[in-house]
Amino acid sequence: MTTIKDIAKRLGVSISTVSKGLNGASDISDELKQMVLDTAVEMGYSTKRSRKENYRKLAIFIENMDYQSIDDFGYDIVLGFKQNAYRHHYDVEIVPVTSTLQAEEKYDTYLLKKQYSGAFLVGFALHDEWLKQLETTTMPTVLLDNFISENPNVCYIGTDSNEGISMAVKYLHNLGHENIAFLNGSPNSKVSDDRQDAFERSMENCGLTPKKELMAHGYYVAESAKYHVPGFLSSGASAIICGNDLIASGVIDECKLRGFNVPEDISVIGFDDIPLASTTEPSLTTIRQERNELGRCAYVALNSLVHHIPISTTTLRPKLIIRDSSCPCSKKK
Amino acid sequence: MTTIKDIAKRLGVSISTVSKGLNGASDISDELKQMVLDTAVEMGYSTKRSRKENYRKLAIFIENMDYQSIDDFGYDIVLGFKQNAYRHHYDVEIVPVTSTLQAEEKYDTYLLKKQYSGAFLVGFALHDEWLKQLETTTMPTVLLDNFISENPNVCYIGTDSNEGISMAVKYLHNLGHENIAFLNGSPNSKVSDDRQDAFERSMENCGLTPKKELMAHGYYVAESAKYHVPGFLSSGASAIICGNDLIASGVIDECKLRGFNVPEDISVIGFDDIPLASTTEPSLTTIRQERNELGRCAYVALNSLVHHIPISTTTLRPKLIIRDSSCPCSKKK
Repeated sequence: MTTIKDIAKRLGVSISTVSKGLNGASDISDELKQMVLDTAVEMGYSTKRSRKENYRKLAIFIENMDYQSIDDFGYDIVLGFKQNAYRHHYDVEIVPVTSTLQAEEKYDTYLLKKQYSGAFLVGFALHDEWLKQLETTTMPTVLLDNFISENPNVCYIGTDSNEGISMAVKYLHNLGHENIAFLNGSPNSKVSDDRQDAFERSMENCGLTPKKELMAHGYYVAESAKYHVPGFLSSGASAIICGNDLIASGVIDECKLRGFNVPEDISVIGFDDIPLASTTEPSLTTIRQERNELGRCAYVALNSLVHHIPISTTTLRPKLIIRDSSCPCSKKK
Repeated sequence: MTTIKDIAKRLGVSISTVSKGLNGASDISDELKQMVLDTAVEMGYSTKRSRKENYRKLAIFIENMDYQSIDDFGYDIVLGFKQNAYRHHYDVEIVPVTSTLQAEEKYDTYLLKKQYSGAFLVGFALHDEWLKQLETTTMPTVLLDNFISENPNVCYIGTDSNEGISMAVKYLHNLGHENIAFLNGSPNSKVSDDRQDAFERSMENCGLTPKKELMAHGYYVAESAKYHVPGFLSSGASAIICGNDLIASGVIDECKLRGFNVPEDISVIGFDDIPLASTTEPSLTTIRQERNELGRCAYVALNSLVHHIPISTTTLRPKLIIRDSSCPCSKKK
């Protein structure tokens, strides 16, 4: 269990400074206080006070998303949410959700029973039972990457996929690429649909034709690469944009396996910028999502809904991080 | 000049309570503190402390928008922004902007010169000189109803026009209306373009045909009604959706003048729900924008940008407020 001493050691400050930070003392700066609190949350520290007091509770419902290791996509999202919530005296409980739970329990009933003031849902697919119930929920709810119409209790949060995909396509086009493939995430998800539209529109805006044989779904897993990369390569792709960094890492491996050099023969671009992206060989050019900020903003949106401020959407800017897996197109036109 | 006594009187609390609220004392509730501060800002109270200290400053740049009277569209937006900014120790200066100023001063230079940490821009049109400069600004900037691509220093805020127009069209369609006219706001503005798209798409989603002779731009002024309502009426419109409540009030007057009863002969729907909407005869059904919350959320977004959180958009839910200017369609089909 994390102690004050552990936090002090990590931050390189005295134990009394950590104690002051945790107790909101007025003789240390706000920045330092915030850093102490953020680190305490990150390290899983829980004070006696927070365990005893009857804090208000928020839930993070997670489906189909890894979040427990720092390398996972969901890790920073959960952390950012908790860091902001903790500062405002909310406890946060993480609830892994299965389709069984969704079938057995009504969403609103479950929240009421567990005394959650609101919830943040991540990783849900369009066909999920609870997603349908959100059309009429009265519980403050923030959804990562999913949108519900006309219910003022529900807010969408996400990175602007359109802008992210558009930046990647324009970047590749400026490097001379024309046969650009897109290995999207899972079908049956709003974010994949948005990115598919964005890819086709961005290609057309660059005067390029999105080709059927250069588009497929990769289900967010590296293994998907072997099913689609061979077809992309034989269809003349000079670049592949991927639905996440895991797919991209699989694509790099598959290209190498087939004797194609990355980036000389084929450029590869990921999505997310998880820690993996800087350790692939070559390191991965990717569309960064600010995941910690997504979590923090999700909390801000949820807290707004709790206070009856009808936020409908919050989106964050993506950022194109250029590393070594992309370069000018070498193919003759 | 507003005194502590004035605030106490308005709120019905003691002078010492107001004083505690203004000074952040810990023995009154957060809710009461917030109410005191909000009221102080609304009544234009400025403490000696706030006048003396060198507060950080934010600007609200206003063009083409009335905000000085409580009846004006911009009043609550400016108030909400100031209420939230004041709580976080920002001073807010309101700067009316002309095209001359925009031509004479570069946007970034002006902010630096005036020592603004960031700015909230309301009422700007697409052709404005400063809007072009926002593509590359390095100053934290929040724009009401305008969007700038790919610049992480700029955030869009607005009410979801698509949802608002869609709710109005569906509502009228459910009342049996088919010949629905749309008297939009000013051309050359993002919000009018969005609403035009939303109107045409919503009509089609209801199986109705948007007709050219039933669509026009009303420039957000009541006087525009007389130029367009006669044509709408002679083309068989049974309902008119308007770009704001001012246009709608002009439409009601024009219909009456021509012997058409509202709502029996023709339903009229406004946009915004400014105070005027409940005083027209009949009172106006309208698509409400939560203007105080728009202002508050604009501050939250701007403060996020100041802290390098790359918020791209924040939208709020509209709400259809049903009053007496709309009813089931009486026309034979």
